[in-house]
Amino acid sequence: MRVYADNAATTRLNPKAKEAMFDYYSTVFGNPSSVHSIGIEAAEALRHSRKNIADLMGCSEEEIYFTSGGSESNNQAIFSAAEFGYQSGKKHIVTTAIEHPSVHNVLKKLKNFGFEVTFLDVDKSGIITTEQVEAAIRHDTCLVTVMYANNEIGTIQPISEIASMCEQKGILFHTDAVQAVGHLDIDCSRECFSMLSASAHKFHGPKGIGLLYCQKGVNLTKLIEGGSQEWGKRAGTENVPAIVGMAVALKEALMNLEERVSKTKYLRNFLLSELLGIDTAFLNGDLERRLSGNINICFPGQSGEGLLLYLNGRGICVSTGSACSTGSVIPSHVLTSMSGEEVAKSSVRISLSEENSIEEMEYMVSVIREFLCN
Amino acid sequence: MRVYADNAATTRLNPKAKEAMFDYYSTVFGNPSSVHSIGIEAAEALRHSRKNIADLMGCSEEEIYFTSGGSESNNQAIFSAAEFGYQSGKKHIVTTAIEHPSVHNVLKKLKNFGFEVTFLDVDKSGIITTEQVEAAIRHDTCLVTVMYANNEIGTIQPISEIASMCEQKGILFHTDAVQAVGHLDIDCSRECFSMLSASAHKFHGPKGIGLLYCQKGVNLTKLIEGGSQEWGKRAGTENVPAIVGMAVALKEALMNLEERVSKTKYLRNFLLSELLGIDTAFLNGDLERRLSGNINICFPGQSGEGLLLYLNGRGICVSTGSACSTGSVIPSHVLTSMSGEEVAKSSVRISLSEENSIEEMEYMVSVIREFLCN
Repeated sequence: MRVYADNAATTRLNPKAKEAMFDYYSTVFGNPSSVHSIGIEAAEALRHSRKNIADLMGCSEEEIYFTSGGSESNNQAIFSAAEFGYQSGKKHIVTTAIEHPSVHNVLKKLKNFGFEVTFLDVDKSGIITTEQVEAAIRHDTCLVTVMYANNEIGTIQPISEIASMCEQKGILFHTDAVQAVGHLDIDCSRECFSMLSASAHKFHGPKGIGLLYCQKGVNLTKLIEGGSQEWGKRAGTENVPAIVGMAVALKEALMNLEERVSKTKYLRNFLLSELLGIDTAFLNGDLERRLSGNINICFPGQSGEGLLLYLNGRGICVSTGSACSTGSVIPSHVLTSMSGEEVAKSSVRISLSEENSIEEMEYMVSVIREFLCN
Repeated sequence: MRVYADNAATTRLNPKAKEAMFDYYSTVFGNPSSVHSIGIEAAEALRHSRKNIADLMGCSEEEIYFTSGGSESNNQAIFSAAEFGYQSGKKHIVTTAIEHPSVHNVLKKLKNFGFEVTFLDVDKSGIITTEQVEAAIRHDTCLVTVMYANNEIGTIQPISEIASMCEQKGILFHTDAVQAVGHLDIDCSRECFSMLSASAHKFHGPKGIGLLYCQKGVNLTKLIEGGSQEWGKRAGTENVPAIVGMAVALKEALMNLEERVSKTKYLRNFLLSELLGIDTAFLNGDLERRLSGNINICFPGQSGEGLLLYLNGRGICVSTGSACSTGSVIPSHVLTSMSGEEVAKSSVRISLSEENSIEEMEYMVSVIREFLCN
């Protein structure tokens, strides 16, 4: 049996999304900037996809900017806020210790330009509080950036509340929602987000495409200069097939959201209750405020890496952390920051999707027990 | 009859490339950074594709960095050279007046950081000379960036000679080879390129993927911060299906290069000789030192835009310039710089590929004659 339980790293492309993409590779393959019919058809597909995505996210088409993925979106969002902060002498940014490297490393770079960054620690629940964020805000804060849901432990932050508090204080708020979009009910019209990043391949869309939601009135600077694509804010021929695929994948994800979440949660809870029955195993981070498919579990005294390799030998794909550093064996910065290096080294992340089955869960339990008994 | 003659804007995806991509969307869909089998298979496909591309380009795998396309590659190359120039007090860059906006607009941005840029004009041949470039170089020049082949008029610059001259002077040389890769025999091992940009969708590969060749020893800075993908120089989950597609498309393009060039040139020369027989029509730029599929022709006194729309009404897709500014009706900066605005307004670009036929050429001639007689 082969079990894919690493859906936080990437997901299988939705078959409807795949089918929708095909035509745009070989029939309607035009450059949307061309003014002839094949270009216009491609531009129409682009417009249509942007409209569908905007409708699904509760925003206008003008607020959606397509990028090559979540990392690019995070970079553009943070650099934009920093540029405008710099111009007005505001060079302080608030974030958390558990953000993705594409947030942390941009912030590190900004330190070279005189920016100060407050990294808020999370406790063992893996959740940041609005009070913590509020207390960290200074007169020179230009941006608060807090991830929607964590990629390793799946914990969901009180994003609405933090965003609303930031809006009241007139401070830009960005959220890396790469793990959240397509998995949670997010309606930008109800929220006070200045900017939000998403990536298609995390919700059964294609790789190489993502988006940046940028609220009307919020200034965006270009990361990639050139032609005037994406409302003049992101140059480069639009990746039409991937954009079409992303729109279909997002629609599929959200149309069936309740059912998907309920199935994934059922599988997750079954697996979790079995695993928590083993010795001293414990869950990293809060159970309730967590993505439905995520289990990040610690088996004290065991090697997470060893368990991962054992599971892989039995056809089961899980992870020990994020999948962003090829061959990296450095313990997760998220778990280290939350619970220390020992816990980080003894933990694995199991991230399920609605494509998994109860048989797969049973198989995983038996293989994990096998490993732990050896 | 529908005729696609806008291959400089984008090309149809090669069927073999398309077929090769499919598996990586639904079977081998892993994240190459994951250490389990599905991730390792994706990483293997990535490695294999990078090796094939490196072999085809005469360089090592470590010199290939995958990006989201030509615009991103140009941005990263120029910003990298500028960053290192800045650090050593060298803030002068040499380029031409006929570069792509993704080069020109980066250079404009650099002016805000105190950089000076020399824009070399081309004469009516559309070719820059090595002597012009050499004469523009100063003691504080940190970069020479000259496009390999122009996207509008198809003229091929004396890139080998310019690159070699730059190397002798110890100056970094970058070429925007987006129109050249897959269409000309380019072997980096024979050349003195510091950096070279390419884009898959210009040689029948997929959109949303490109590469930056960066010679060993040349410093590259990150445009997108985050994980350590692409030798630590370009963050974001690798777009494996598109990279696989690009590798296959490049192989197909280069394996059959002679045959493709010879067929395209035959079609181009037939069409050109017919069109040059009409009134006072003339070719923009040198005929010999030109991409095999390119015709950029001026019909004095006529509206290029009008001709384009007329042709489109008869199923023929051509262009009046580049396809990088949606809805833009500004006359081509390339033609304006070469021959003035009048010529620019009366010209069209016809860019053929080996997929075109002689019947299509005959049809185009008849429709163009029809337009000019009305």
